[in-house]
Amino acid sequence: MYREEQDSVGKLNIPKDAYYGVNAQRAFENFQITGQRLDPLFIESLVQVKKAVALANMELGELDPKIGETIVKVADEMLAGNLHDQMIVDPIQGGAGTSSNMNINEVIANRAIEMLGGEKGDYTVVSPNDHVNKGQSTNDVYPTSGKLTMLKLADILLASLNQLADTFEAKAKEFAGIKKMGRTQLSDAVLITVGEEFHAHSTLTKRNIKRLEAVKDEVRALNMGGTAIGTGISAHKDLPQTFNKHINDVTGLGLTVAEDLIDATQNIDCFAVVADVQKTIGLSLSKVANDIRLLSSGPRTGLGELYIPSRQNGSSIMPGKINPVIPEVLSQAAYLAAGNSYTVALAVEGGQLELNAFEPVAFHKIFESFRVLSNAILTFDENCVKGIEVNKERCRELLERSTYLTTDLAIHIGYKEASEITKESLRDDKTVIEVAREHGVSEEIISAITAD
Amino acid sequence: MYREEQDSVGKLNIPKDAYYGVNAQRAFENFQITGQRLDPLFIESLVQVKKAVALANMELGELDPKIGETIVKVADEMLAGNLHDQMIVDPIQGGAGTSSNMNINEVIANRAIEMLGGEKGDYTVVSPNDHVNKGQSTNDVYPTSGKLTMLKLADILLASLNQLADTFEAKAKEFAGIKKMGRTQLSDAVLITVGEEFHAHSTLTKRNIKRLEAVKDEVRALNMGGTAIGTGISAHKDLPQTFNKHINDVTGLGLTVAEDLIDATQNIDCFAVVADVQKTIGLSLSKVANDIRLLSSGPRTGLGELYIPSRQNGSSIMPGKINPVIPEVLSQAAYLAAGNSYTVALAVEGGQLELNAFEPVAFHKIFESFRVLSNAILTFDENCVKGIEVNKERCRELLERSTYLTTDLAIHIGYKEASEITKESLRDDKTVIEVAREHGVSEEIISAITAD
Amino acid sequence: MYREEQDSVGKLNIPKDAYYGVNAQRAFENFQITGQRLDPLFIESLVQVKKAVALANMELGELDPKIGETIVKVADEMLAGNLHDQMIVDPIQGGAGTSSNMNINEVIANRAIEMLGGEKGDYTVVSPNDHVNKGQSTNDVYPTSGKLTMLKLADILLASLNQLADTFEAKAKEFAGIKKMGRTQLSDAVLITVGEEFHAHSTLTKRNIKRLEAVKDEVRALNMGGTAIGTGISAHKDLPQTFNKHINDVTGLGLTVAEDLIDATQNIDCFAVVADVQKTIGLSLSKVANDIRLLSSGPRTGLGELYIPSRQNGSSIMPGKINPVIPEVLSQAAYLAAGNSYTVALAVEGGQLELNAFEPVAFHKIFESFRVLSNAILTFDENCVKGIEVNKERCRELLERSTYLTTDLAIHIGYKEASEITKESLRDDKTVIEVAREHGVSEEIISAITAD
Amino acid sequence: MYREEQDSVGKLNIPKDAYYGVNAQRAFENFQITGQRLDPLFIESLVQVKKAVALANMELGELDPKIGETIVKVADEMLAGNLHDQMIVDPIQGGAGTSSNMNINEVIANRAIEMLGGEKGDYTVVSPNDHVNKGQSTNDVYPTSGKLTMLKLADILLASLNQLADTFEAKAKEFAGIKKMGRTQLSDAVLITVGEEFHAHSTLTKRNIKRLEAVKDEVRALNMGGTAIGTGISAHKDLPQTFNKHINDVTGLGLTVAEDLIDATQNIDCFAVVADVQKTIGLSLSKVANDIRLLSSGPRTGLGELYIPSRQNGSSIMPGKINPVIPEVLSQAAYLAAGNSYTVALAVEGGQLELNAFEPVAFHKIFESFRVLSNAILTFDENCVKGIEVNKERCRELLERSTYLTTDLAIHIGYKEASEITKESLRDDKTVIEVAREHGVSEEIISAITAD
Repeated sequence: MYREEQDSVGKLNIPKDAYYGVNAQRAFENFQITGQRLDPLFIESLVQVKKAVALANMELGELDPKIGETIVKVADEMLAGNLHDQMIVDPIQGGAGTSSNMNINEVIANRAIEMLGGEKGDYTVVSPNDHVNKGQSTNDVYPTSGKLTMLKLADILLASLNQLADTFEAKAKEFAGIKKMGRTQLSDAVLITVGEEFHAHSTLTKRNIKRLEAVKDEVRALNMGGTAIGTGISAHKDLPQTFNKHINDVTGLGLTVAEDLIDATQNIDCFAVVADVQKTIGLSLSKVANDIRLLSSGPRTGLGELYIPSRQNGSSIMPGKINPVIPEVLSQAAYLAAGNSYTVALAVEGGQLELNAFEPVAFHKIFESFRVLSNAILTFDENCVKGIEVNKERCRELLERSTYLTTDLAIHIGYKEASEITKESLRDDKTVIEVAREHGVSEEIISAITAD
Repeated sequence: MYREEQDSVGKLNIPKDAYYGVNAQRAFENFQITGQRLDPLFIESLVQVKKAVALANMELGELDPKIGETIVKVADEMLAGNLHDQMIVDPIQGGAGTSSNMNINEVIANRAIEMLGGEKGDYTVVSPNDHVNKGQSTNDVYPTSGKLTMLKLADILLASLNQLADTFEAKAKEFAGIKKMGRTQLSDAVLITVGEEFHAHSTLTKRNIKRLEAVKDEVRALNMGGTAIGTGISAHKDLPQTFNKHINDVTGLGLTVAEDLIDATQNIDCFAVVADVQKTIGLSLSKVANDIRLLSSGPRTGLGELYIPSRQNGSSIMPGKINPVIPEVLSQAAYLAAGNSYTVALAVEGGQLELNAFEPVAFHKIFESFRVLSNAILTFDENCVKGIEVNKERCRELLERSTYLTTDLAIHIGYKEASEITKESLRDDKTVIEVAREHGVSEEIISAITAD
Repeated sequence: MYREEQDSVGKLNIPKDAYYGVNAQRAFENFQITGQRLDPLFIESLVQVKKAVALANMELGELDPKIGETIVKVADEMLAGNLHDQMIVDPIQGGAGTSSNMNINEVIANRAIEMLGGEKGDYTVVSPNDHVNKGQSTNDVYPTSGKLTMLKLADILLASLNQLADTFEAKAKEFAGIKKMGRTQLSDAVLITVGEEFHAHSTLTKRNIKRLEAVKDEVRALNMGGTAIGTGISAHKDLPQTFNKHINDVTGLGLTVAEDLIDATQNIDCFAVVADVQKTIGLSLSKVANDIRLLSSGPRTGLGELYIPSRQNGSSIMPGKINPVIPEVLSQAAYLAAGNSYTVALAVEGGQLELNAFEPVAFHKIFESFRVLSNAILTFDENCVKGIEVNKERCRELLERSTYLTTDLAIHIGYKEASEITKESLRDDKTVIEVAREHGVSEEIISAITAD
Repeated sequence: MYREEQDSVGKLNIPKDAYYGVNAQRAFENFQITGQRLDPLFIESLVQVKKAVALANMELGELDPKIGETIVKVADEMLAGNLHDQMIVDPIQGGAGTSSNMNINEVIANRAIEMLGGEKGDYTVVSPNDHVNKGQSTNDVYPTSGKLTMLKLADILLASLNQLADTFEAKAKEFAGIKKMGRTQLSDAVLITVGEEFHAHSTLTKRNIKRLEAVKDEVRALNMGGTAIGTGISAHKDLPQTFNKHINDVTGLGLTVAEDLIDATQNIDCFAVVADVQKTIGLSLSKVANDIRLLSSGPRTGLGELYIPSRQNGSSIMPGKINPVIPEVLSQAAYLAAGNSYTVALAVEGGQLELNAFEPVAFHKIFESFRVLSNAILTFDENCVKGIEVNKERCRELLERSTYLTTDLAIHIGYKEASEITKESLRDDKTVIEVAREHGVSEEIISAITAD
């Protein structure tokens, strides 16, 4: 049932069939924190890194090709989806990701050993440290893999955002001519069109897309080759560039080498920047979701200018109630991303000397924010925005009831007198035009402000 | 024009008339950070501490009565408002408040020297360190003074909150019988009264008052006597209790001695708790302010159930526009307090070993939050809530237009059929009762649900 | 394979064997957000609420006993651990928890129908809304269940904290006599003992325990009976008190009825307070973890005063390296809890009018923080603190090398001259005593300060 | 003593000599919030906007040249520093900045009236609304002025950062050859040089400079011409472009017109991005400050590798104590900026429909963060970093005492055996080389790893 493995702490029983080894097992026992697994794209990224380093090490003559080729074969198996269940460590772990790196090293080593006819645990055949981790350290493997994962997740979020921007743009065209009341500070202001409102949502979304595209540059420059503290100890001097060629082949992600590997090992400010972009995307779109909830409020006692699709019963007690559940979930995703940016900021400040040991929680939360935001924006687009319709009748009715014309009037008769007319109009429940006439405003002016 | 003073760094020119000395001057030069002054209540608290320690030291035979009595006299002068301009250090300063403590020591010493006929700067007469700071360290003086200040500022905020709670309660009574539509998720729900809504605001405010009262216990236990690291080095062993008696005489604040002075020197979690209560008070009342803005939105195209007082022109361009500027400022105060709680949390985590060196920024922000919240709540109460009136006509009109009776109906005919009736009512623009009759609901049931 | 169900949105196919129904299925499709499941204790709490309401409704004559008893039987099955997999909705969901409530209603109804010999989906036998949800609304069921869950999770965290406090206390005794250098601002200060340091950790931990105990009162007062908006519509007027009796029987948690159910429905400030206590517990203990890392730093080039247990290989590249991975994970848990408190604060401010629709994200994050903190503190206690040992040799060596005696010296010769002696001692690499003698300090004084 | 003015609220006495008018006076009374004044650069920016609009309006034939020229003359007076004391409104104010805009309109109008021979308060001569505010709204004036201010303050922060980056770079060169122990997770790792560490600080600082340069583009696109809600009501259709020409002449800041003025009026996500860059700059540099404190810790019982300049007495009780007060203040500035970014994020999410009413608190906090960070970085550079020296002796001593050679050894003999050698070396207090020889490691290998 068990095989015995040993590390510097002592001996430990490992399930006989397990591909992971003593280090993963210890980490599993030390860190029962979230009960969750590593993100699948993070596992994929770890494997891609291991594959690309093996290729680089073989090219540089640092790794026995027999072992190197086997490592590559195992990596390809894992990239096809195998052995993910052997990654047993908790995403939140002490030690700057050492446990994750040890886990992947052991899984690859044991599968390679098996391929080469050895017994799992016999690390004389393939060593997790001396072969799979050759020329590497957790301190370059882990941040490199994290950055790859963020680039992939960013693309998922970008897809959601692009889809949403397109929908907003389409709605802007669909609703282009529909006049309605514009409101500032929730108070009646001046005329706007529904199309203009949706165009603004589109502009905002596109700006967020640009920010997200730009922030990818923060994580495109990789740590590999820096090893323990960025000085490259134990690695071939050409490893950074050679690895970079291979990792680009493996991932197609347009990656570069960090210009200062020592800095890249100890400073993780780039992750705070990613988390902040997530926060800003979330909170700025939450404002849009809030607007849509407000404009569709009702059906009878709210603003009622928009209809949003009914997606589910809104209440377990109030029959027929339909609630804006889809926009609400987007706001919640935003709150989550905002909180996570705080967590990441704390992790950034916590770094000390040659390393930031708090990357695991930063990664875990950034990955979570990417997934939650992507999912929430997708359902927002598909189950809400796409189906929005305008209650034109209501828009017109509210507009007519309002005093919005006084702003135009002020251009002709001055702010002070226009104020008086507004006050009288509201007090006596008359239209602005009626009161203007009573004040002797000329028909010429009245024609001018009602022309449009 | 100048006198020369010296410290371990070297010699420095001090303005001849200045009561502060070389340490304050260096701090002033080192820390040009916020451009602001110490909060007047913090200066008062520092002085109260210095007075109470002088009294305690005299009682314990640790301080020459001639010098001690003079220190007390200077303190009384400062408590009467003199010499505050001599406190020149920036509120944000490195060193856990050393600069503030040095500044007050020097001011008191120089004024005492003057009283005793000496020359300012001649610290052989009265020494800032050996006499004014006798048996003390910045590390007990500074947090003690900060806690006193918080207790005083908490009382100011409590006064604002109590006034607001009273107004809400009065409004709850005033609006007790007025029925209106209740809304959940901005959607029409069931009947409520305006009085019930204001009663809920009152309950919330009172709960916040209870929290703020309770949190005072977090800062009531003082550090004095702990000196440098809480072990009481250089202080008389009875100083904590003797000081405590005197500081209670001086302030009347019901203060105690911290049970573990070492813990109290290095852990400032209590300040995070204070800042979090500020945040919760702010954000929970911001929800109320937002509700009031929403319910008073309009005047013509919003919900329009409430009238809030006009306090100023709302717009530089839109004549006659009145905006909910007072509730808006309350939300901004809340955002400020929320951000400050983040700052304080970072300061709490930053402590190391025997001391937390980041108290100055924590104090500065907690004081700011107290003042800004107190002021914003006061204007909210006086310039908004007190003057709120209800548009009863509008409340009734919206209620009648709604389908709120279906929830009552469901009790009699089941959720499923009531849902159908709701849908038809909305689709065909009929009342719930009309559609219910069409569905054959008995007059008995109809009487029951419309009885109230 | 499928059965057809219908709601106000339309018809939908549900897997034939599923106990959940159309509402859960729609929610599942609308909210693919986190990919996670509801916390098991939250499911348990939902079931306990449903059971206690069924009992209350039967007692009040509101529910057919045949149906009521069956609901109770189903609840007991679920409390024994069955059918949890039928709770399919995402923890983050729009609509203030409606989806969770609908899901549990449907699961209980369908299992009850089955018990009564009906076909799943035939809600004429037992209706999710009219029977299982009788006299309830999501808006009282969901917060009530969330509060129960928090009370349970708080007890788990309390257990971890109590264990840690005990260990700190035991270590304080174990290390009671061991003198060492105290440091403020990372700079040499004055003498302290290792025992005193651990006693301070214990005091801090106990204070956090008190806070956590106290904060339970924030969530002990339940919403049940308030239904949709707190006015109790559709519920028997005695439901709050009758339910309260039964829920206390079922849970033993010492629960009460909220004093103002309208307030309790729309204001969720209590959850911000819970999240803030989590944050403070985390960040204040992170300071302790940081201290332990710092004091155990080395082994050769750090402070090296403490030994912490080796729990796993510290590095994939540096052989024999042992890292403080356990304290590091505690800091990460703290950062997570701090971020979550931000998320919860945003949710609190987001409430509008009669309801706060953002409870789901608040609950999800509060539950996460409880679990992550509990787990991290447990591993911190068991895998780190329990095994800490002191390097007494090192403590003594550093103490002797330092100039800590100057503070004592100043009491006798004044701050100014003691400063000079310190400077010379450091400059000339001599002991304080040596330099003091050179300055002519009397042997009497020297005896006094070296006596202890 | 007083003159009477009137607005839509009623009559009000204004001090006879005051240049501000009724609107500023009401705002002053409504908003006694922070007790602070508007930032001088914000006042300057408001004036620049008013001047450039007057020029644009004259060019477009919208403003009587006699009045327009007078407005320009007043603006020039104010740009020279006059009348700033007439800006009396609190920086935190309800109403999206209306009070600030009204205040500047009134001051300019009254001074212009005076120049034209009229009586202050006689707005028939020059009207604050119809002339000074011609073609404008608070909703474009206020954000435009805020953006100008941020660009100016960003340049001040950039100057501090550039100076710091230069110092780090100079120190990197100065300390280039000095070998020392590298530490990860506070544990001994492998060799690094002091120069490499400072170079990493320089790289980080330069990256922050790049971010700050880039973020200026977020606020370079101005709102002017959008007026109330971005549709440009009341403004000449060419105002945006014409204004842009003039404001670039007046400020030289390279400004553009926002591409979607409606979006620019209601979405203020750009300010969250600015605040987040401030946060990241602060927190990432706080890590550097923490490192410098740690490496200079001591003087006798810390790491002691660096010397930082003595800037002031460190303690009021411990003679001769020198504390790292300058790096400490940088961390505090960072905590302040981090908290402020939270405040700004809340303000961003709070926007509703056509306007974000919470700009005032966002501006106030962003300005504060800029000033505090700039000041803290400046003192950090000048009073700390510039004077850092290395204790080479100590660096060498620690390095020699360590086991850092085992990482090199592992390349030759494998990770597993190298781990054993490390353990023995630490256990038996021998050097790695000694133990390696005992393990039979060849002299060839030993030469190789000790070669460098």
